[in-house]
Amino acid sequence: MTARRGVLRIDAAGGVMTTRPDTIVAEEPLEIRVDRRPLAVTMRTPGHDLDLALGFLLTEGVIRSTDDVRTAQLCAGSDEPNTYNVVEVALRPGVPAPVTDPSRNFYTTSSCGVCGKASIDAVRTRSVFPVAADPATVAPATLVGLPGALRKAQRTFDTTGGLHAAGLFAVDGGLVLAREDVGRHNAVDKVVGWAVRERRLPLSGHVLMVSGRASFELTQKASMAGIPVLAAVSAPSTLAVELAEEVGITLVGFLRGSTMNVYTRPDRITSGPPLPSRPG
Amino acid sequence: MTARRGVLRIDAAGGVMTTRPDTIVAEEPLEIRVDRRPLAVTMRTPGHDLDLALGFLLTEGVIRSTDDVRTAQLCAGSDEPNTYNVVEVALRPGVPAPVTDPSRNFYTTSSCGVCGKASIDAVRTRSVFPVAADPATVAPATLVGLPGALRKAQRTFDTTGGLHAAGLFAVDGGLVLAREDVGRHNAVDKVVGWAVRERRLPLSGHVLMVSGRASFELTQKASMAGIPVLAAVSAPSTLAVELAEEVGITLVGFLRGSTMNVYTRPDRITSGPPLPSRPG
Repeated sequence: MTARRGVLRIDAAGGVMTTRPDTIVAEEPLEIRVDRRPLAVTMRTPGHDLDLALGFLLTEGVIRSTDDVRTAQLCAGSDEPNTYNVVEVALRPGVPAPVTDPSRNFYTTSSCGVCGKASIDAVRTRSVFPVAADPATVAPATLVGLPGALRKAQRTFDTTGGLHAAGLFAVDGGLVLAREDVGRHNAVDKVVGWAVRERRLPLSGHVLMVSGRASFELTQKASMAGIPVLAAVSAPSTLAVELAEEVGITLVGFLRGSTMNVYTRPDRITSGPPLPSRPG
Repeated sequence: MTARRGVLRIDAAGGVMTTRPDTIVAEEPLEIRVDRRPLAVTMRTPGHDLDLALGFLLTEGVIRSTDDVRTAQLCAGSDEPNTYNVVEVALRPGVPAPVTDPSRNFYTTSSCGVCGKASIDAVRTRSVFPVAADPATVAPATLVGLPGALRKAQRTFDTTGGLHAAGLFAVDGGLVLAREDVGRHNAVDKVVGWAVRERRLPLSGHVLMVSGRASFELTQKASMAGIPVLAAVSAPSTLAVELAEEVGITLVGFLRGSTMNVYTRPDRITSGPPLPSRPG
């Protein structure tokens, strides 16, 4: 997942320039083909490519479960680096082919734009899982431990500083799976694709923790996978909050140190005992 | 660009939960239509939408200059929030329509994948500007000042913590333009689109500073706009480094404090005097 390369290291304060080897995180194109037709290309960190493709197809609404997939195959080129990789997915007979017309998700009207509630509808896919009814609860003391647990699971991050991470946790804080990628969405797709392959959907009773912001698209992916709690180290966006509220996801942002903001469905946050106070 | 909303603020260490208003950065879909056909939808922070569309079209290779555009018009809905906005662009007669077939950028072969040099070719667009020949140079002491100057220009960031930024600087460190967005690519497209609209292309003799990582796509956007130096606060990817080397961009990463890594074309980095040492 990384490459070594000589770089010029500069310390402007000391006027020092040195050439030294540096570890760089890999980014390569992955083409996702469905029934021999190219559907998408994503720039991703190689690894768990089948899961990435399956997760992408599920969160984009192309498949609903493993049963919709007849075969999925990674076709890797033989050259390194810069291999152009392809995942070939064959759908089961009867599963509708994805519509690749870029207007597929739009309400096209003679006027300019559609407004209000319809705007979210225009860009979202519909989850088959009733996330809103998920009775999971999670304690604040559990949530504040997740960023550290995720970082600990990110071996590559420590080396290159260049990767986003997504971690799937049980509501008691136990780490189920961690994935990382140069792309935030890819890391989440790799987690969801694992669940597709392992027939673990819906991921009720779980928390999805992401290393960056909580965007609309990440919230949508959590919804499509049936995940009731989405927690992010950084800020959510307005549309992420609106979608979380609509589908009934508990959205937690700015999860840092011992504090967090809960934007939606705070009823899933238990008012458990406070953390043990630390000396100093 | 922001919305206010009540959130549950939790301090798990103190066992304190309070409800308070919070500022959330806006994220809304923008549809880009070319000659009445939808081309793309991006989730973006509203503002500078025409520039975003023009920058997107230029860096995707649909247009080459302002002259390729007959009209560009923002059609905003009347409802707030959640307005679904559209930018309508009409091309000049003779400008080829964008190909929306998802396979447009792929070499399709009977075997699985294409390898080596061809892989970059498969996903990139070609710049009309000879960036490699740009004689610009920049001093390390200038570069280390850019992250601070960019943050200073980011008024919204301080409020919400949720925005990526892109800054266009002269090689003497003077800020030309700063833009921010929930999406890293959008912030860069807004900068490039400004240059399209103001007929400032190519942006030779400039430095593009981005708040996060240097990805392949950001490097490609710099190349398409003719920007000779790309600097990032965080890590580059392998493909970003390879593309920068191929097109002749100076790629600077981990630009933090007084230090940085120069990955490609270090000849543009002058060995000027060191920074004045700071007390302590």
